[in-house]
Amino acid sequence: MGEALHIPEADALWLAPHLPTESAIQSAKTQNRPYVTLTFATSLDSSLSLAPGVRTRLSGPESKAMTHHLRRHHAAILVGVGTVIADDPGLNCRMDGADLDAQPRPIVLDPRGRWDFTENSKVFEVTRAGNGLAPFILVGTASVDSAKRAILEAHGGKYITLETRQETTSRFDWPSVLSALHVEGLHSVMIEGGGQVINSLLNPNNQRLVDTAIVTVAPTWLGRGGVVVSPDRVHGSDGLPVPAARLTGAAWRQFGEDIVLCGQLGE
Amino acid sequence: MGEALHIPEADALWLAPHLPTESAIQSAKTQNRPYVTLTFATSLDSSLSLAPGVRTRLSGPESKAMTHHLRRHHAAILVGVGTVIADDPGLNCRMDGADLDAQPRPIVLDPRGRWDFTENSKVFEVTRAGNGLAPFILVGTASVDSAKRAILEAHGGKYITLETRQETTSRFDWPSVLSALHVEGLHSVMIEGGGQVINSLLNPNNQRLVDTAIVTVAPTWLGRGGVVVSPDRVHGSDGLPVPAARLTGAAWRQFGEDIVLCGQLGE
Repeated sequence: MGEALHIPEADALWLAPHLPTESAIQSAKTQNRPYVTLTFATSLDSSLSLAPGVRTRLSGPESKAMTHHLRRHHAAILVGVGTVIADDPGLNCRMDGADLDAQPRPIVLDPRGRWDFTENSKVFEVTRAGNGLAPFILVGTASVDSAKRAILEAHGGKYITLETRQETTSRFDWPSVLSALHVEGLHSVMIEGGGQVINSLLNPNNQRLVDTAIVTVAPTWLGRGGVVVSPDRVHGSDGLPVPAARLTGAAWRQFGEDIVLCGQLGE
Repeated sequence: MGEALHIPEADALWLAPHLPTESAIQSAKTQNRPYVTLTFATSLDSSLSLAPGVRTRLSGPESKAMTHHLRRHHAAILVGVGTVIADDPGLNCRMDGADLDAQPRPIVLDPRGRWDFTENSKVFEVTRAGNGLAPFILVGTASVDSAKRAILEAHGGKYITLETRQETTSRFDWPSVLSALHVEGLHSVMIEGGGQVINSLLNPNNQRLVDTAIVTVAPTWLGRGGVVVSPDRVHGSDGLPVPAARLTGAAWRQFGEDIVLCGQLGE
């Protein structure tokens, strides 16, 4: 399953103010949602990967350990179905000394039930080895393959049915997704990708749902044609384009060759 | 003309190893070119501006002062014609105490002679006020408007005619451009933009011409449709995409809300 990860004490101290606090979690609860950390790693040209479905090593071991440290401090981690299909990820916390109590619940957004996992999918291997939890899969239709449901439930996961947006069957509304996590008693979530998930949260309508953004940038340009993080264009009242999103309270720290940025979305 | 800029001593010390050294300049001379620093500021989604021709405030006062400190330590600054048409920039160093000896020579790449400047263009106002030098404009045709030539030469600037690439009249070859600067006795140059200029230098064919890259990133997403820094896609010998460019020796430092990254292009 790979080596256990470790984060230096000084890095952990620097990150501490950017982790969910009890009072911030309470405040999110009053909005029927978990505390939300949006986190991802890009190249300098804002790509998550070289192409859809192509796993791309971007960030170094230091910022990878940082990501797993964050996972330990959240009740859930959330990814879109494109990411699980492309990467077959373990979706667990691989920090040194992280027992099952420290494992986040994986959440997969799969509005159309596209994920054809088997019991050999990495996340179930991890679960059987006692190194992580089985996913909760949010689907938009009640008709789920019974063989898949049996595998999922045998590992302790489940399907959660959620209405899709009125205008499309391929997307959920973020308030519905977050409300579903709240109902499950998951009080903090790290939203990790992929591109569509991240870009939709950076849109002005959804920024208020994000408590903290933690972005890693690697000193690499992947080149045109990658999976790009860039929200939709926003126009001001005069019809001219304006910046789509900005972070306030920006704090940066070098992790190995990479930089990690923490901040809050909005003015 | 705006206030004089100042850079804290600690920032200047951090930048010092990334400035052109005498030995690096000598080494570049043996290649008939100046020492080349590639420098620019982008958003987190790698945009230089909201749209072509739209001046966009991205970086804060601290990293702006950093840029002017760099200008003071280079013999020339180079931009493409799109940038001067869009921004009407002063193209000078506005550091506190920068006299005429400290001013870099502005170089404008204008293969098709598109820049319709007048004596009221900012760069000539700056020159007349004794706060900067008039530009050398690299053009691809010998037929330049005589009125423009008169204005340019009256301010101490000039046109330099250069052959364009065989396949197009709209681009120069970088070795020809750099050789022209070498012939003029300009032994270091800061290449600042815009997007086309930067992306062409990040291409694998040209990376060896860049001695240092200094990139500022502001904690903002401009959104889709901006002027993006991202080099052309590169494929490996197996036909699969590979990262187009990477920086080695990456060093990052926070300047105000922004981050500044210094490194060398290539493996």
